[in-house]
Amino acid sequence: MSSTRIQIFDTTLRDGEQVPGCKLNTNQKLELAEALEALGVDVIEAGFPISSPGDFASVEEISKLIKNATVCGLSRSVEKDIEAAAAALKYAKHPRIHTGIGTSESHIRYKFKSTPEQILERAVAAVKYAKQFVEDVEFYAEDAGRTDNVYLARVIEAVVAAGATVLNIPDTTGYCLPEEYGAKIAYLRDNVKGIEKATLSTHCHNDLGLATANSIAGVQSGARQVECTINGIGERAGNTALEEVVMILKQHPHLNFETGINSRLLSRTSQLVSEKMGVLIQPNKAIVGSNAFAHSSGIHQDGVIKKRETYEIIDPMDVGVDHSSIVLTARSGRAALAFKARQIGFELTKNELDSVYEQFLSLADAKKEVQEDDLCQLLEKNSIHAA
Amino acid sequence: MSSTRIQIFDTTLRDGEQVPGCKLNTNQKLELAEALEALGVDVIEAGFPISSPGDFASVEEISKLIKNATVCGLSRSVEKDIEAAAAALKYAKHPRIHTGIGTSESHIRYKFKSTPEQILERAVAAVKYAKQFVEDVEFYAEDAGRTDNVYLARVIEAVVAAGATVLNIPDTTGYCLPEEYGAKIAYLRDNVKGIEKATLSTHCHNDLGLATANSIAGVQSGARQVECTINGIGERAGNTALEEVVMILKQHPHLNFETGINSRLLSRTSQLVSEKMGVLIQPNKAIVGSNAFAHSSGIHQDGVIKKRETYEIIDPMDVGVDHSSIVLTARSGRAALAFKARQIGFELTKNELDSVYEQFLSLADAKKEVQEDDLCQLLEKNSIHAA
Repeated sequence: MSSTRIQIFDTTLRDGEQVPGCKLNTNQKLELAEALEALGVDVIEAGFPISSPGDFASVEEISKLIKNATVCGLSRSVEKDIEAAAAALKYAKHPRIHTGIGTSESHIRYKFKSTPEQILERAVAAVKYAKQFVEDVEFYAEDAGRTDNVYLARVIEAVVAAGATVLNIPDTTGYCLPEEYGAKIAYLRDNVKGIEKATLSTHCHNDLGLATANSIAGVQSGARQVECTINGIGERAGNTALEEVVMILKQHPHLNFETGINSRLLSRTSQLVSEKMGVLIQPNKAIVGSNAFAHSSGIHQDGVIKKRETYEIIDPMDVGVDHSSIVLTARSGRAALAFKARQIGFELTKNELDSVYEQFLSLADAKKEVQEDDLCQLLEKNSIHAA
Repeated sequence: MSSTRIQIFDTTLRDGEQVPGCKLNTNQKLELAEALEALGVDVIEAGFPISSPGDFASVEEISKLIKNATVCGLSRSVEKDIEAAAAALKYAKHPRIHTGIGTSESHIRYKFKSTPEQILERAVAAVKYAKQFVEDVEFYAEDAGRTDNVYLARVIEAVVAAGATVLNIPDTTGYCLPEEYGAKIAYLRDNVKGIEKATLSTHCHNDLGLATANSIAGVQSGARQVECTINGIGERAGNTALEEVVMILKQHPHLNFETGINSRLLSRTSQLVSEKMGVLIQPNKAIVGSNAFAHSSGIHQDGVIKKRETYEIIDPMDVGVDHSSIVLTARSGRAALAFKARQIGFELTKNELDSVYEQFLSLADAKKEVQEDDLCQLLEKNSIHAA
């Protein structure tokens, strides 16, 4: 059975760029858009054209630049927003307008001071209006995560009938558990008339650390597009991390899903986004953190030295990292010490290893990390010389 | 129905401290242990006593210091490891020895060059030996995530019969999907004779970004202890983040689980661990990142200003953060501009707001973030003065 292709919708340049301090100018956005296209994303959400003149210009320039990916612009369910998005996307080879409105009780009552019926009418009107400009119209039901499923299905059914091609079901506040989010997607798949004409999309936030798991649960329940950002950047605790979703699908082939991402470009794309946006990546970030492939405990080092797969499920080369690393600390054992010594040219006999190991531990207890220089000095102090 | 209490087993000082560069001296470990006890963790894994003299001393001093929490020391299934752990825990009010061995095919064949039967014998022997020193013995089946469930159940049944009180089922390589990990815990709950005499424990790694979801799936399937670290630190992509598990259980009361954690201390404990270990927290880290409660897009700011719960599921005060913040950027709308102006003493009329908003956007397009000073200057340049 051939794998089902999952569309990767990257919103680094829109939802990611909303982050305090992450603002990019047009040239920076163009550079990142080019990197995203090289990475193989299917859709680039390039910005929110009505929000500022700078962002309008960025979406327009990205539209001219990008050849293969769909370029998408955000809008509220407001005519002037949709007009701005359409204008900014004028030069795109594959333009998509993303429009929508809040559907949860909290959004309807407090944000819009409206009623469910009026919101449904505004949603349909927005999709119809956007369809006057482009064929590909994605609808978002903001705060779908906290929206009653029966009402949500009514809204989705109405916008599909109005021509929406993609249906974004955001867990805007990052509240859902994976089984709840999966059940919501499954409910829409099973209860919305005409749903087979459109693509269900996940859009999860990480407020409780569940964005990735929720996105995967959505895919397993029928979603065929995942909205995500590089490094999981985004407002508050951020969005679903693109690199995590891609590698989960890749490492679990029995799920039978695939993406168009060239995973070997993940590491460098991650670095580029971090540098341009000035958002650091914590060392223990999955897939792209600086320690993601570093081993320091003795038990793990010993296992990895014997056979990499003992502790590593991903070959670092697969994400563009050229090697896993063995870091010498006070938790390292004799095997790691001998391995590192060999790397810098010293072949230790068993006796030499025994005589040096205790001194190594004292040194390591005093320091956070024993560097190659320290090790070299220690060995030479013990009259052990490189081969 | 009263909630079921989940034990929080913190391994910041053991699995967390194995991280390259995170090595702590005894005084630093004591300070963190005190903070963990104040936070309300049930078990503090204090170190791996056989690994180095410094770590032995740390476990010993923590044992003297801690009053309420169980203090735990790690060991392999090796007599000298278990003896060192017992000696280091001599002064603990509630000592626990944590011992175990790898049970996956990869570990048995390549790391131990052994057979399943021999590994089972070593596991039982280790638990029996540890029971000679302490009543509370936790057993870990390393790489349980990739261990065949039938063999795993045999090992677990044998160590329970040998007296193990807690059964740690680690997804050592961070490979499992939540439904797989949950099914593994459920299989043990349903198929191991005598399982009711012991506590099943989750221990998940974050290599694919699923550690938190896997831990919750484990709890939903019968685990009653979660092993985790502050900020999710740990080898490679780290361990399950304590703060995420605690807040998921708290924010989803229908799950009917509770912990003994004082969530209001989460933010300051997170900061303390980050400072002492020198591991930075990315701004978009769930619960404890600096942006976790920061709003910058216009749509979100407008919603939060009208009613906090529109975009925030956690009251920042609940995790010890004294306020959510509205950050002015090019994505901010009129509502946020007026709100911020009011915060610094300017009451804008509708006309003033309209006249200043376009200038504000130009400024914001040119800068990453519009600070209070910038806003103040902009308003005064327009002859608008503080009330």
